[in-house]
This record gives sequence, structure tokens and C-alpha cells, in this order.
Amino acid sequence: MSTTVGILGGGQLARMLALSGAPLGLRFLVMDTVADACAAQFVPLLQADYTDQHALAEFASKVDVVTFDFENVPAESGQWLASQRPVFPSPRALAVAQDRLAEKTLFNELGIATPRFSAVLSRADLERALCDIGTPCILKTRRLGYDGKGQFRLKSEADADAAWAALGGQAETVGLILEGFVAFQRELSVVAVRGRDGEFRAWPITQNWHHHGILSASLAPANCSEALSATALQHAKSVADALQYVGVFALELFERDGELLANEMAPRVHNSGHWTIEGAECSQFENHLRAVLGLPLGSTDARGLSCMLNWVGELPDARGALSIAGLHWHDYGKSPREGRKVGHATCVGDSMAALRRQLEEAGRRLGREAQVAPVLAALG
Amino acid sequence: MSTTVGILGGGQLARMLALSGAPLGLRFLVMDTVADACAAQFVPLLQADYTDQHALAEFASKVDVVTFDFENVPAESGQWLASQRPVFPSPRALAVAQDRLAEKTLFNELGIATPRFSAVLSRADLERALCDIGTPCILKTRRLGYDGKGQFRLKSEADADAAWAALGGQAETVGLILEGFVAFQRELSVVAVRGRDGEFRAWPITQNWHHHGILSASLAPANCSEALSATALQHAKSVADALQYVGVFALELFERDGELLANEMAPRVHNSGHWTIEGAECSQFENHLRAVLGLPLGSTDARGLSCMLNWVGELPDARGALSIAGLHWHDYGKSPREGRKVGHATCVGDSMAALRRQLEEAGRRLGREAQVAPVLAALG
Repeated sequence: MSTTVGILGGGQLARMLALSGAPLGLRFLVMDTVADACAAQFVPLLQADYTDQHALAEFASKVDVVTFDFENVPAESGQWLASQRPVFPSPRALAVAQDRLAEKTLFNELGIATPRFSAVLSRADLERALCDIGTPCILKTRRLGYDGKGQFRLKSEADADAAWAALGGQAETVGLILEGFVAFQRELSVVAVRGRDGEFRAWPITQNWHHHGILSASLAPANCSEALSATALQHAKSVADALQYVGVFALELFERDGELLANEMAPRVHNSGHWTIEGAECSQFENHLRAVLGLPLGSTDARGLSCMLNWVGELPDARGALSIAGLHWHDYGKSPREGRKVGHATCVGDSMAALRRQLEEAGRRLGREAQVAPVLAALG
Repeated sequence: MSTTVGILGGGQLARMLALSGAPLGLRFLVMDTVADACAAQFVPLLQADYTDQHALAEFASKVDVVTFDFENVPAESGQWLASQRPVFPSPRALAVAQDRLAEKTLFNELGIATPRFSAVLSRADLERALCDIGTPCILKTRRLGYDGKGQFRLKSEADADAAWAALGGQAETVGLILEGFVAFQRELSVVAVRGRDGEFRAWPITQNWHHHGILSASLAPANCSEALSATALQHAKSVADALQYVGVFALELFERDGELLANEMAPRVHNSGHWTIEGAECSQFENHLRAVLGLPLGSTDARGLSCMLNWVGELPDARGALSIAGLHWHDYGKSPREGRKVGHATCVGDSMAALRRQLEEAGRRLGREAQVAPVLAALG
């Protein structure tokens, strides 16, 4: 009689979904293209290509509801699954969120400011967009980009040839978009959840730091004015309502001179919400499952002040840090590889002073002083 | 290169060990006699009898270290495994903790008061013990009893025949012990952990309530004087050091007129420590794994005030309670059966008032007013 949740993609997000769903009595099946998908250390795996119709049928037959740890599942596969089982978020919402042009267009329609942007279908489009937007700017693929991949930064118009050489080949396949570079002061994100019945909850605003295009650290709740926080949450709610979105998503924002610009939305549990496992009453993972299953949503209130440190490429030696009270270790069970997210740690303190002490200690013991430095600076 | 922890017994304790060990990058193998052991929903299962030498050899070959979710594994099996792999707690410690006579004898040797007790090997022993201890008293099997099983309560000497009829057949197999009945005011437990290097940590004292011999509710930290708490912790440390114990264990205590009497020790993670998952910096499950693996122990400090409610027989309908902020649901994925532990919920509040509100709400929405009533009374 138990409910089985099917997850497309078997990486660390699926793994953490499964670990957080087990106490709800849920079972899981993940589908992934690789045999060593790290979620498969704890839940059954169906290894197949996402376009394998036979595998999709087997997957659908074994699960009660379908969700994602990976938003770049082919649209036709998502649509077919939605004809068999409830799929959340819906393929329609995914299609918008997957596409930098569609999502930014939606943001603007909803009155949410964004960096300037322009669709680029040809080399001539790129010239026109460069005139329009100016430099510095960033040429990006409309779809399939993540963690800084599929992006080329242009410092001046002289970089147009190099940008086109790098990404022009994708103009007619996934499409391209030119975005104005924003000289922001802070990167923020809203991680939020919307239930099947439209109930909306958001965790406190998170401040994020990136390194080489990959999230390096998150601090939550970010030090924000009530007005800024209210605006950010209202933006997230507008987007979620417009898409009739069901599940957890993240809205990434730039803060520039007190103004918020929406960068993109991620239609899934998000790296900048990992702190919620220990730092919030109900984690993003559990609330995503609750939303997808039509269960009441849990409280998104913070418990103390949290900082997540991402481990990219390889894990530091945990032994040095495990004795730090308030530090929680997360090893995704992956082998090391350059640029790969292999784990994270979250420090949770009752006060800024307590969090500061933990981070200083963690930075020193793990040899990650540079990684914690910007967070310590933000803590003041 | 990852470490695999072998667990003898695949019930909810093994399940919660695995779920808490996953973030440490650990893998697991459970051995259990039944195919539907609930831990096997998330980790591989070796289904076999604990005395199956072939299965034990396979189990040992696949794991790096062995521990238990079930202390009544045959002693020879534990000893054989200990010849192949590190086994924690050690078979010697298990042997003492499994045996009500040996553990109470040890408690007294360490200066820890217990209820009066006497070994019973024969009907004549029972008469002598009755004279010595008086009534009311309880005849118990020395080994293999749990949750009130293998016990017979004697109100007067006239009950001796009935007691002997019920348990006398086990006098020469597992052995019997007659224990004086203690008119206690409170049942308390110390859940503690000792590392491979002898480091000792204890979670705050827990107050427990039983129903039909099975744990019904736990409140932690219990409202104890510093002196009582220090004595309880010192008792736990004395026992752990005497046994050179490695891992988590629980020491169950009766409080009578300000005095502590040791009832028994459970050589494993314990039902009265389930609140530590959300209510302490590091849970009993994670710290047990840390101890067994020789990793630094985590902080046993409480986060707020917690109450665990045990679900026995069948689960209440979760839906009514999931929206209560601070309430955390744990469904063990078992089918309902009378007397079976099928799940629990833990409420964590920042204050007595907050916890009280959660418990009142949970009792009402789940139809468990009677179960929360004694906890509310203790909260004052």
C-alpha cells in the first residue's frame, strides 16, 4: 500500500530526496543513464536512456508519481510520462524553466526585472543584440546549461567572433540568448514550494557565492531588509502561480543597488536550499515530496542561522571537522572528478557569533579558509 | 573505497542507522531472517538465519565493520564474526547486556543501585527468592526478553505457581531472575555513546512512559536536578568503561524518592533516543556509526525540547499532523501488527510552551490525547 515516487535522474538531489522521504514511509525508483548514479546506493535504479520508450513504460508502471532531480529530461519523455502518471512539476512548467528566453520573458511579463536580454538565432542577431545590450555581456545557450556551462562572456564587441565560435553551433539547436552583465552586489535565491492545492511557502532568502560558476557557499537567512525579502518572495510566488508550479524551485536573483533582478529559475530542489536539511523545520527535499504527493506542506521557518559549504571536485578530509558541534557532513558517495559536486557541509548556529566560530574552525581544519572568507565577511 | 557497515538485524533501528549514515558516505548491508525487513527498503539485505555459517561468511566478506540492531544474535555467531571483522559493541559487552543477572550484578559491583534481584534456577529457588525479595515482584527470563515479553508479575506468594507455569520451562535454558517491584515516580534513561578511544558522551536525560510494557512517549531533556543528572551520567559512564563498550547504549533507570535504580541496559541505539534525530546536534544513529568506525563523536547537546511519541500496532493518519510546525514523522515502512513498533513522531519546540502547543495539537489531530496526556502533565 506504500507510495512509490519515481525520480528522473539519480544524482545527489534524488539521493537526498529519497533519504528525506524514507521517514514518510515512501519508496523510490530512480531512472538514470548511468549505472553508478549515487542515489542508487539507497534506492532501486532503472538504468536507461531517457528516450527509451520501453524503459519509460516500465518506469511508469512501477511508480505512483513522477518527479525530477534533473530538469533536462527530453520534453517528449516528460509529456509521455504525464499521460501515464501524475508528473510534478508539469512538463509545461519545466519547458518554461528550462529555457532562459522563455523564463526571462515570463519574468518581465510578471513585472519582475531581469538583466537585459535578447534572443540570438544567427551571427547577425548577435551583432544586433550586442548593439542593443552593450558590453560586458554573456552569450548563453537557451537550454541545457548549468553550473556555468554553455556560457561565453564578452568583454567587448571584439569578443563576438570568439563567442560565436564557441556557441554559434548551438544557435539553431538549443538556441542562444545574449544577456547584459549585471554588476551586482549580491547573489540571492528564494527557494520555495507550491503545493498541488496552490499553497505557497518559501524558506528565508539565501545569499550565495559562486566559484568558477559553481555554487561555493550559501548563507541563510540572508541579511535582508523586510522590504527586499517581501519583494523576492512575491516574485517567487508570482512565477509559481503563473506556471501552476507544483514542488520546490529556486529563483536566483541579483541584488544591485537595492534592486532585484531575476536571473533564472531552477525547477527542482536546489543546491542553495541544501542548508534546509538541518537549518529549517522542514527541508526542501521533504517539502518537495509533500507537494508532489499532495500532502500538507511543512514549515519553512529557519532553525538558527546556517551556512552551506559545497564540496566540488573532491571532498576535504571529514575527520578534521566532524567534531565541530553544529557541523553536518554530506558525502554524496561519488568518486572525485573536476567540477563535480561530491558533497557539502552545513554549519548551523544559534547566533551569528556561533556560526562565525564554526566557520572559522571548519575553514581552518579543512584547509578551506578561502571558501569561508566571503561568508565571514558577510557575517560582519 | 567507501566503507560498508554490516548490521545484524534489519528492523527500524538498522533502517534509521542507514539513513543517518548515508550522509557520511557509508554503505550498508543488513542481515535478517525475514525478507521484508524494513531496512531492506533502502539497503541490501542478506536473508539468512543468524547461525548460518555460510551466510555469516558471506556477510563478513562484504562488510568492513559489524554492528547490531538486535542484541539477541547468538553469541557464537557474534564471536565468529569478531574473528573476521571488527565487531562493536564487542560480543563480551553484548553477553553482559543481554543477561539481566549479569548486568545487574555488574551494576552493583560498580556501586550502582538496582531493584533487589535473585537468580532462579528451580522452583525451590523461586520460593527462596520470594522470601528474600517479597512481593510484589516480577519473574523475568534472564535473556531474550524485550518490550515486556518474558515477564510475569507476582502480586503475592500465591502467584508463584502461575508464574512458574508461565516461565519455569525457561529456567534451565535462558535462565530466570526474580526482581523486586519498584514503586518508582519516574522512568528515566541515559542514552550515551563511547568511542573506540574511550571518549564518552551522553545525551540529556530522557523521561519515558510505557504502555503495556512498550515505550509510549519520551521527553528530553527531562526536568532533572543537576545532581540527579550527573549521577545518571556517571552511572552510564561507569558501565560503559567497565565493559569497554563501543557504540551507543541506553541505561534505563527508575527514580524513587530522588534515588536512581538501574533497571537494565540496552546495548544498541534505543527507542528512548529517537528524539535525537531532530532534537540533538548529532543523533544517536550517527554517533553510533561514528563510534563503531572510530570517527570523532558528534555533539550530544539538545536542540530545543523534544517529545517522541511511539506508534505501536498501527500508524495514526499522518495527514492530520504533518502541518504542525516542529513535528517530524517517522514511518518505518512496516505493515501493521498488534504490539509492533511501526513508527514514531518527534515534536521539537524552542520552549516548554511551544512543545506543549505542538503536543496538544498532535494529540487532538491524531486522536492520541491519552498518549500525550502524561507528557503534558510532566511539562507542568
